[in-house]
Amino acid sequence: MDPLVIFTPSGKRGRFPKGTPILTVARQLGVDLDSVCGGRGICSKCQVSPSYGEFSKHGVTVKPDALSEWNDVEARYDRVRGLKEGRRLGCQATVQGDVVIDVPPESQVHKQVVRKAAAVRAITMDPATRLYYVEVAEPDMHEPSGDLERLKRALAEQWEIGTDGLSVPLPVLSKLQPALRKGDWAVTVALYKGHGDANERVLDVWPGFWEERLYGLAIDLGSTTIAAHLCDLRNGEVVASAGVMNPQIRFGEDLMSRVSYSMMNEGGAGEMTTAVRGALNTLAEEIAGEAGIEPAQIMETVFVCNPVMHHLLLGIDPVELGQAPFALATSDSLSLAADELDLRAVNPAARAYVLPCIAGHVGADAAAVALSEEPYLSDDLVLIVDVGTNAEIQLGDKRRVLACSSPTGPAFEGAQISSGQRAAPGAIERVEIDPATKEPRFKVIGCDLWSDEDGFAEAAAATGISGICGSGIIEAVAEMRSAGVMDAKGLIGSAAQTGTERCIAEGRTHAYAIHDGRADGGPLITVTQGDIRAIQLAKSALYAGARLLMDEIDTDTVDRVVLAGAFGAHISPKHAMVLGMIPDCPLDKVTSAGNAAGTGARIALCNRAARGEIERRVHEIHKVETAIEPRFQEHFVAANAIPHATAPFPELRKVVDLPDVAFNTGGEDGPKRRRRRA
Amino acid sequence: MDPLVIFTPSGKRGRFPKGTPILTVARQLGVDLDSVCGGRGICSKCQVSPSYGEFSKHGVTVKPDALSEWNDVEARYDRVRGLKEGRRLGCQATVQGDVVIDVPPESQVHKQVVRKAAAVRAITMDPATRLYYVEVAEPDMHEPSGDLERLKRALAEQWEIGTDGLSVPLPVLSKLQPALRKGDWAVTVALYKGHGDANERVLDVWPGFWEERLYGLAIDLGSTTIAAHLCDLRNGEVVASAGVMNPQIRFGEDLMSRVSYSMMNEGGAGEMTTAVRGALNTLAEEIAGEAGIEPAQIMETVFVCNPVMHHLLLGIDPVELGQAPFALATSDSLSLAADELDLRAVNPAARAYVLPCIAGHVGADAAAVALSEEPYLSDDLVLIVDVGTNAEIQLGDKRRVLACSSPTGPAFEGAQISSGQRAAPGAIERVEIDPATKEPRFKVIGCDLWSDEDGFAEAAAATGISGICGSGIIEAVAEMRSAGVMDAKGLIGSAAQTGTERCIAEGRTHAYAIHDGRADGGPLITVTQGDIRAIQLAKSALYAGARLLMDEIDTDTVDRVVLAGAFGAHISPKHAMVLGMIPDCPLDKVTSAGNAAGTGARIALCNRAARGEIERRVHEIHKVETAIEPRFQEHFVAANAIPHATAPFPELRKVVDLPDVAFNTGGEDGPKRRRRRA
Repeated sequence: MDPLVIFTPSGKRGRFPKGTPILTVARQLGVDLDSVCGGRGICSKCQVSPSYGEFSKHGVTVKPDALSEWNDVEARYDRVRGLKEGRRLGCQATVQGDVVIDVPPESQVHKQVVRKAAAVRAITMDPATRLYYVEVAEPDMHEPSGDLERLKRALAEQWEIGTDGLSVPLPVLSKLQPALRKGDWAVTVALYKGHGDANERVLDVWPGFWEERLYGLAIDLGSTTIAAHLCDLRNGEVVASAGVMNPQIRFGEDLMSRVSYSMMNEGGAGEMTTAVRGALNTLAEEIAGEAGIEPAQIMETVFVCNPVMHHLLLGIDPVELGQAPFALATSDSLSLAADELDLRAVNPAARAYVLPCIAGHVGADAAAVALSEEPYLSDDLVLIVDVGTNAEIQLGDKRRVLACSSPTGPAFEGAQISSGQRAAPGAIERVEIDPATKEPRFKVIGCDLWSDEDGFAEAAAATGISGICGSGIIEAVAEMRSAGVMDAKGLIGSAAQTGTERCIAEGRTHAYAIHDGRADGGPLITVTQGDIRAIQLAKSALYAGARLLMDEIDTDTVDRVVLAGAFGAHISPKHAMVLGMIPDCPLDKVTSAGNAAGTGARIALCNRAARGEIERRVHEIHKVETAIEPRFQEHFVAANAIPHATAPFPELRKVVDLPDVAFNTGGEDGPKRRRRRA
Repeated sequence: MDPLVIFTPSGKRGRFPKGTPILTVARQLGVDLDSVCGGRGICSKCQVSPSYGEFSKHGVTVKPDALSEWNDVEARYDRVRGLKEGRRLGCQATVQGDVVIDVPPESQVHKQVVRKAAAVRAITMDPATRLYYVEVAEPDMHEPSGDLERLKRALAEQWEIGTDGLSVPLPVLSKLQPALRKGDWAVTVALYKGHGDANERVLDVWPGFWEERLYGLAIDLGSTTIAAHLCDLRNGEVVASAGVMNPQIRFGEDLMSRVSYSMMNEGGAGEMTTAVRGALNTLAEEIAGEAGIEPAQIMETVFVCNPVMHHLLLGIDPVELGQAPFALATSDSLSLAADELDLRAVNPAARAYVLPCIAGHVGADAAAVALSEEPYLSDDLVLIVDVGTNAEIQLGDKRRVLACSSPTGPAFEGAQISSGQRAAPGAIERVEIDPATKEPRFKVIGCDLWSDEDGFAEAAAATGISGICGSGIIEAVAEMRSAGVMDAKGLIGSAAQTGTERCIAEGRTHAYAIHDGRADGGPLITVTQGDIRAIQLAKSALYAGARLLMDEIDTDTVDRVVLAGAFGAHISPKHAMVLGMIPDCPLDKVTSAGNAAGTGARIALCNRAARGEIERRVHEIHKVETAIEPRFQEHFVAANAIPHATAPFPELRKVVDLPDVAFNTGGEDGPKRRRRRA
């Protein structure tokens, strides 16, 4: 009987004749064992670890001579580059007796890579672009054929790649002849095959065996910032991250002002397209420089963004997104040449994949959040809130998922707040107010100490105390409510009403002073009645959107809440709930998904099947348009109170006391200003 | 029983309920009846001619009320644009009784267009790009979807076009939203689907029903000249033709000097690519201007060219084509965006199709000749010679076809000839020499009279008599042989030997004077011994190539000869055979195919199935490499004599007397100089 070969961790097994290379055995059994050179002992991707001894579990005994002895190829490889203890090259070692072979994770093509920041789920590697080493027949005058045609034949024979429709961009074709000759009739080619493609395409070609790696960029194109992760397409590892401001800000702070700019200025959309594409090139250059790779090693890019950014990226005037019925030019995903987006700082043949949009107000960023958080696979009812300038809200479980967008405006990001600033060193990011003394303490970004701890003044001197960022203002307002210096309607009490001199009169209203740095030449940092109103507008919009989806699904409660968005990572769930940003829910069921949109982009970058998955899923997500739902307005008004005028928030009240104070002086009675979509 | 509808010329028939529109009937019966607007009475492409009366052949009587009366749509169309007598719009006229309907040629999609210049065969219209008028659903906020997705749905519903993989370039996508709104939710789209494509692609979009036509450019990219035909993609009509000099001439007159330029100059290939692409843009602009159309109406381009031009067009360094084994970078056809070739003077989304090459010396131009002349369908054995700077030779029948290239050099084009000039007014193009008197007579381009006819001097005064063009030198040399002023070895006799003072001594050799214009300040036009040697080199190469293919197929005779190439149209078969350019064959079996390569390009432009056809055929054509065949050299030497040292040329001798003279003076004995490949 032929020797038995057993692979771990897969458990796959079979009998093979003596002398069969392990790589051949793995292929025949369908074991996931990598190879770029196709078994020629060049690439070392097929490393395996044989195990020796008794394996009662498998019923075999592996003798010391179960594999062939080291051959010249392995010896040379070990001498030149070093082979780890106990490792063999799967293409060189042959079966000589029963053997148990472990395939280490780095030798698996479809290895699973666990997300670092938030280890919620793993990404299975299945990138669209891979390298293939191939040996090509030399030309023969008697049987003339093109070098490309012989490359195709070799790919078909050596890699079983269907090459009938294989496409090669002209600039790559022009490199083929010198590469083949320089590589002595061997080349390494990068082949791309998208999830929906019938055929591969050649993205690049190098002489001989090319040692370098391929990378992809996962890009979260936001209205304010553009964030990119550079990922190794072999293992999904994030090798560098970088962000730049979106230069479109000079055309308008928020999305609607950019749409207006386009409507008011002939060629305005084109200007904004040029600006953002320029920034993307800068970003790609920077991130490649940081990682120490060539831009030409970046073979793929994946984009997630809101619909207005989506259209401006693609060179489409977003004017239709500024008015009902908010028609997208296209909602489906796009698979493009990066060149079509004028991306020059990547490989000239690099690809670009843009996730699908869900609706005119729920973009590819929301689709990416869905891909990351998978509400459509959830057993319990999950509410996912991606908090940014607009909030995208998704509610659902494996039976159905709803989505909407809600115009929260930029208050949650510290804009339109009197002492507001972006999250940078010196910004107050956490606030606590003692309910007895009404005295605050706080932390600033760049300093680990609370403001009432010893050494704070010295430590904070480096950064200064310059303002309040988004998470700081949420905590401040929530703490003011819990401490009783602000009532449920959002009115800040007077010093007399609250018993603290921190409540300062400002005209007919009051402000609460968190920090007075004026003695040292710093600012007086207060939360004004206007700030409260801005936060109320934002949080009412957010809550009303969530509530509208809950109506649609006919529920008054959700099982859990996921806060997404870069900002979501910093919001304290308790404070968010005191504010009534999100519906009542056990606090331990409120989690942060970090930059879920960015994670979704990385998943789509590393796993092409995920692209098909989200393309199918977005069609099943039911979109609710807040702008035309009359109940949205009702929910919005009711949500103005802090936490809410009518909803009881029983889970919140289990953990937080909310004093029953009222500072109404008969005048102002809550916000009536018109909201605007940001 | 339902009324019977019979279509002519197809003969298709069927019974349909009263009230069924004729267009619907045609579609259900599979009758080829055109429509761009899909039956909305807009495009008028579905015009038909009903016939009335007794049709015993069909067994029906067609009554005057067999079709519905004119409706408003037809009346309006007739008022605005005029409907030809007896015509109806197929989408408006409905069946009311038995009827016979003729579909005129212009209403057929797959109409046959007979070539004008040489009516050898018809082109069936089946262009890759067509226009579709489509009405698109308006966006609905409650069921959000992109405008593109609704366009796709409409195309699928109204035209049964599979739109799953339909691609839209970003610049076209950016035009979609304004076009839909301007066209009140109707647009005309240009869709392209190549013969090998699984999916269509949108090339352009216009609001509402677009009245204009689409065009394609068939381009014959030669070493010396670039010729283009602008064809209407609806009916194949050539609406304009133009030619420009290939600006690469400044880098080298012939192909090998251009290859050398690339080898000797870093970036030289790129310079030549830039030059030829610039000329193509100029040509496209000129031809569009001449035809009075917008460059954006040019949707397709088809290229035929020799391998060196092919590579330089594509931006590939042709260096490998200058040395054995003459490896092409790619031999297969290419389907590209015209933009990849930097063609800016056409529609931005226009396509480019480059025919396949046969081998390193037998290019896409030879493939185009094969497509035009179809040797692979021939019942008899046909030799096709495309005479240019290089000669491409094909020999075969429906059983097998062989091809080779032969380095004739530019002598046949009047270059390297002492009195040679290009074919322009004033050039001697025809020559006859009286065997008795040895006196010549001739015709010049631009004058219809022979030089010995009354009024010639006056008529020729307008052009002058300036030199000899390619066809003129062939006739002159052949006539010198027939008249006995030159012997079979190619030696020109002295005045004493030949008995005519027209044989002038020139050093140790002689020249024959055709015309002495010196008295009027014109040139003395002679055929020198050096001219004879140049023609001998060229014709020996041509004959040797043909003979090599005949060896391969094991035959001493061919059934017919086709002379192709712009030059081929002007060669006199009898003189070509006296010269021994081509093998012996009955003279009435030697025909000219005109610019067969250009015709092949037009066929590929108008009929996408022809592209698939020639792609298959080139793989079956057996290539013979003259450069490495020892017998080529033998044949070359034997073919030096005029017509031939050993081949008897019995068919030729039936119609022409070849005097058995010999002027050998013991010195020069034929050409020993090295040939060079041009």
